[in-house]
Amino acid sequence: MKEEQKIPNPVIRRLGLYYRCLNKLYDEGVEYVASKDIAARLGVKSSQIRKDLSYFGEFGKRGVGYDVANLIKKLENIIGVDKYWNVIIIGAGNIGSALVNYPGLKKDKFNIIGIFDADRSKVGKKIGNLTILHISQLQEFSKKNIIEIAVLAVPENAAQLVVEELEKIGIKGIVNFAPVRLRTSIPVEEVDITLSFKTLAYKIANKISGN
Amino acid sequence: MKEEQKIPNPVIRRLGLYYRCLNKLYDEGVEYVASKDIAARLGVKSSQIRKDLSYFGEFGKRGVGYDVANLIKKLENIIGVDKYWNVIIIGAGNIGSALVNYPGLKKDKFNIIGIFDADRSKVGKKIGNLTILHISQLQEFSKKNIIEIAVLAVPENAAQLVVEELEKIGIKGIVNFAPVRLRTSIPVEEVDITLSFKTLAYKIANKISGN
Repeated sequence: MKEEQKIPNPVIRRLGLYYRCLNKLYDEGVEYVASKDIAARLGVKSSQIRKDLSYFGEFGKRGVGYDVANLIKKLENIIGVDKYWNVIIIGAGNIGSALVNYPGLKKDKFNIIGIFDADRSKVGKKIGNLTILHISQLQEFSKKNIIEIAVLAVPENAAQLVVEELEKIGIKGIVNFAPVRLRTSIPVEEVDITLSFKTLAYKIANKISGN
Repeated sequence: MKEEQKIPNPVIRRLGLYYRCLNKLYDEGVEYVASKDIAARLGVKSSQIRKDLSYFGEFGKRGVGYDVANLIKKLENIIGVDKYWNVIIIGAGNIGSALVNYPGLKKDKFNIIGIFDADRSKVGKKIGNLTILHISQLQEFSKKNIIEIAVLAVPENAAQLVVEELEKIGIKGIVNFAPVRLRTSIPVEEVDITLSFKTLAYKIANKISGN
């Protein structure tokens, strides 16, 4: 476990890419795949793929490549998608609504089981199959349901307060769309849309091409 | 310029964080700030901040700190937000709609000037102040407007085709929400929501805490 904690975040993100690619190959009936074929599909270097996978002791056989089904299983275990995760969304605005309707999440075993908002005029309305609940119902909801991940899609000034509520109900991880650093010991994954635009602006201004 | 191209992406992303923090300090009337004060606000290490800023030859003075206004100007120039960027969105689904209404983008000088969709039933409808145009109107639109950045918020199977259209009209950069690697020489910034969930799942499964 100590060893795995040193794996850099970009590697972890690429594992998700490999996982998706391998699933497609599996669906196409491919049994063995070379790193250079994965590389061609994803637009990353094959040396990068070999290096990333070697973190987990996975080495393709020369002339044969990686065993697709076996590698999928290993990656599922590493990434943590060998199980279903129950997810709630805090904030029923545009981003919260977009997530409820985002097909990729369910496919990857992230089940959205509830959505909450502080605005009483939204409570009772439906997004997809879910009925918006009031944030004050969170504690009660957490007693009746196993919740592991919470998505923060609330305004900046509400985020830290919500985090304290999430700590009380024992949330295991937070995906944070609010443009603010959270103070918490819960694992957080930041999704800052504005930062992506700024990073791109930097790439354009400095003529850095590609992904 | 060669030197700047070696700056790692995580540093560039943190520059965006510093930029936002410094603007808040400026609004509060703060003239000089120590790295440890920025660190406390953002929850990053002050040594990290000093290292990141030293990439750009910016060093705080001992006992005085960084000149806030001066550092803001420098960061604006580095990040490329010293100008306005014109942005179009391809795909008027949930994500596209969320972006049009996302206040942070305009604040950071990313102006959304058009939104396009392939679904004719959506064409003519309004999102915020924008009227949805048909994707076939893109070329004409590009002759009448300066477009620098395009956001891809289309289904996976449509993404590569759209990229080829974007290349034709001379787009300078792409923010990609479609869960697929694009083949293009245009600078791309990926926003893969599913990957954020997977990275979080990995952190939870391996008990890695914090941001």
